[in-house]
Amino acid sequence: MGNQTAYQSLTRTFQRLHHFGHLSAIASWDQAAMMPSKGNEARAAAQAELQVLMHQLITAPELKTQLDAAEQEALDPSQRANLREIRRDWQLANLLPAELIEAKSLAAARCEHAWRSQRRANDWQGFLQNFREVLRLAREEAGLLAQAQGGSRYDALLDKYEPGMKSADIARIFGDVKTWLPGLIAKARDKQAGESVIQPQGPFSVEKQRQLGLEVMGLLGFDFDGGRLDVSNHPFCGGVPEDVRITTRYRDDDFVQSLMGIIHETGHARYEQSLPRGLLSQPVARARSMGIHESQSLSFEMQLGRSRGFLQLIAPLIGKHFGEQPAFGADNLARLYTRVAPGYIRVDADELCYPAHVILRFEIERALIDGEIEAEDVPALWDEKMMAYLGVDTRGNYRDGCLQDIHWTDTFGYFPSYTLGAMYAAQYFATIRRQEPQLDEKIAAGNLAPVFDWLNANIWSQGSRWTTNELVERATGETLNPAYYRAHLQARYLD
Amino acid sequence: MGNQTAYQSLTRTFQRLHHFGHLSAIASWDQAAMMPSKGNEARAAAQAELQVLMHQLITAPELKTQLDAAEQEALDPSQRANLREIRRDWQLANLLPAELIEAKSLAAARCEHAWRSQRRANDWQGFLQNFREVLRLAREEAGLLAQAQGGSRYDALLDKYEPGMKSADIARIFGDVKTWLPGLIAKARDKQAGESVIQPQGPFSVEKQRQLGLEVMGLLGFDFDGGRLDVSNHPFCGGVPEDVRITTRYRDDDFVQSLMGIIHETGHARYEQSLPRGLLSQPVARARSMGIHESQSLSFEMQLGRSRGFLQLIAPLIGKHFGEQPAFGADNLARLYTRVAPGYIRVDADELCYPAHVILRFEIERALIDGEIEAEDVPALWDEKMMAYLGVDTRGNYRDGCLQDIHWTDTFGYFPSYTLGAMYAAQYFATIRRQEPQLDEKIAAGNLAPVFDWLNANIWSQGSRWTTNELVERATGETLNPAYYRAHLQARYLD
Ligand SMILES: [Zn+2]
Ligand SMILES: [Zn+2]
Repeated sequence: MGNQTAYQSLTRTFQRLHHFGHLSAIASWDQAAMMPSKGNEARAAAQAELQVLMHQLITAPELKTQLDAAEQEALDPSQRANLREIRRDWQLANLLPAELIEAKSLAAARCEHAWRSQRRANDWQGFLQNFREVLRLAREEAGLLAQAQGGSRYDALLDKYEPGMKSADIARIFGDVKTWLPGLIAKARDKQAGESVIQPQGPFSVEKQRQLGLEVMGLLGFDFDGGRLDVSNHPFCGGVPEDVRITTRYRDDDFVQSLMGIIHETGHARYEQSLPRGLLSQPVARARSMGIHESQSLSFEMQLGRSRGFLQLIAPLIGKHFGEQPAFGADNLARLYTRVAPGYIRVDADELCYPAHVILRFEIERALIDGEIEAEDVPALWDEKMMAYLGVDTRGNYRDGCLQDIHWTDTFGYFPSYTLGAMYAAQYFATIRRQEPQLDEKIAAGNLAPVFDWLNANIWSQGSRWTTNELVERATGETLNPAYYRAHLQARYLD
Repeated sequence: MGNQTAYQSLTRTFQRLHHFGHLSAIASWDQAAMMPSKGNEARAAAQAELQVLMHQLITAPELKTQLDAAEQEALDPSQRANLREIRRDWQLANLLPAELIEAKSLAAARCEHAWRSQRRANDWQGFLQNFREVLRLAREEAGLLAQAQGGSRYDALLDKYEPGMKSADIARIFGDVKTWLPGLIAKARDKQAGESVIQPQGPFSVEKQRQLGLEVMGLLGFDFDGGRLDVSNHPFCGGVPEDVRITTRYRDDDFVQSLMGIIHETGHARYEQSLPRGLLSQPVARARSMGIHESQSLSFEMQLGRSRGFLQLIAPLIGKHFGEQPAFGADNLARLYTRVAPGYIRVDADELCYPAHVILRFEIERALIDGEIEAEDVPALWDEKMMAYLGVDTRGNYRDGCLQDIHWTDTFGYFPSYTLGAMYAAQYFATIRRQEPQLDEKIAAGNLAPVFDWLNANIWSQGSRWTTNELVERATGETLNPAYYRAHLQARYLD
């Protein structure tokens, strides 16, 4: 230890955290994809023990001194960026008293556990009892973070997932979307009313869906020596950068959703698999933010995966695995994958309706955290906004309304990342298309390298080297510009 | 902490170790059954970090004071047994300097890594270079343990796996086996020379083998809500008692070995699944010893699984999954599963030849550790003993001789547990048969409860409550008596 710089001491602590985080990530994946039910209690206890340990490591008193000393040391730019990220992690962990963290975790566990049956039972009043406490603690957390960072309470929670982003920016961006989205949805539905779409005829065996999924993952450059595809109730991308675990779920009457879900998670996976190798144990090597992560999955799912060229490329594979059907033509697949149909459920929403679900949640959770509304006000607001944005009536239907997402049992400030991701993805692809005039032809011919090379050079390999604004500006020449998103949606749904 | 007794402080430390051990066990299972190759380096680093942490916990200076203070506290008998096991763990961890542990781990990793290709290349001289260092460190470890515990160096290593067992006892027991085993093998082969055995005709699809395996595990009472069956290169039983992970490997030209392997691992699994629940975080709830663990797998594989009644029970299942074949009659299955054929490889050995492989290894590793021979003496001794015990010529064939096992890259003193397990299993079944005169008829009729109930009451539910001798005496009325093993083998192979 004697000759270690303060910076080196910090990196060693964060390397330990990284190693423990590895075990926690694998155990979490296992819990979702492999673990039988009776393992649950022991697993939760083991994970909690590790969380306590990791919290002790990152709240050890010497870290403050080391952080201040490291600021004075000679560091190269990458080390300085790493120190910025280390300080950020340290602040997030040290601003909250241990009792609050424990109270939050208990309240979340209670609320989530009850939510599972309350949602089925359409029991908003029951949920409300636990939700009030969750909200109270979230406001307390947000208040402590906001005190240290400035800005509103909701800003402070948003910043956990989108460092540097302010809720006023999001309100402005989403406010603009609200001016044109309902009209665009209506026009797209009018246009599609005259189209005939052929539905694929099942059943589609799980094993064949899996083989198709693996083949498409291969096309998308997933490294199977550094990752796996498995099944879980809620699809996700987990594991560690060296060993990325994605999951899907299969229905034997429909392969369309699962296949696009695999494409989505493969986008997340390639980001993780391509983070800068030499630095993997350090925060600077992590994905930049939740919105940037989602911009990778949506680059794959929305920009690449739903593009005409890509559907031409995979149409023959679908026929190969399931036998030929009229529904498997590229034109019909494109109609299937761009069908607009407002509905209750966010995770089932189409590309065009999805942002409406997000904006609604952002507006409600921001008002909740900032204290403009109370927990009991949620259903009425939900009903009003669903009707205004999507023309959908949710009155009395909590199950498919404000009880549908797990997020609010625990998490506030995350929802904007989904739509920010879609916007970033549109901006990347506008840039890629400028640089590659024949992009769709190349994609249709199976040459996806222009997309992967651009994402790798500009996003994946950069980790957290830059702030989000710097990253996006270096990649596309400007910071977030939602005009590309609007142009993309108009081109796809109206032209 | 204020009002905690020393005993309570100790149990909290061991609970933490148990929680961390849970994550380590799941990560180990994952590594063998799930992990893609590129995850290896990061996984090894994460596991090593956790090992360092666990070593720090168990070598914390306050534990010595707590152990001494706890001896003076009022404890019930189960707590006192737990304290005995805690002290044992503590001693094993604290008798060795950290540098030795690290040197051992490095030497083992180097030796094992090189062994994988050296074995293939039949390269004994190459192996010897690393093996000398492994042996030197094993002797050093054994010397330190023996100094504290009394007895020989080999005694000290043996005690890690078989607490309380002395190498002189094993030498006496194995010495007796050597007087009758070669003759018994010869007579059994003479008897079998006139038998005709029908070989099952493959291929046997992996999926059908898996379904058959799962069905047999169900018959054997495996709790699928608390465990899984998967595939790995080297079959094992891992995971944690609340969530037991067993593995097998399949060959599509032969289901016989894999099926019996699953039965073996299910024996290990039921022991783990039935350890005393309320105490699971404490050492007193752990399996008694490696030999007792093996006595459970061998109770399932050798005593129950190869019994006529059990083969009658599963014969129709085999036909159901693979289609009927003449080879699937219970009589033919019994001949298949009791075929005696001396060969090179321990893990492929039949029930009768297996102890010869173990005795040979015990004699060599004991002499190595106690300094009676040197590393370079192994091949000649191996050749001599293989010829004497099994009539097999291994000269120059290191690959299928002394390089076949992974154990000696890391572990000495473990081999006797395999045959001790077989002996205990024979002794249990002699007891069960005394108490259940119609046992085989019950088994054939699918009533396995007498076996499970006896094992559960006498072994599984007892954890480490008793010493091995106490456990076996309480269960069978006497401590280890190898006469039952001899009688079992004579009855099965000569009558
Ligand atoms: Zn996503
Ligand atoms: Zn075994």
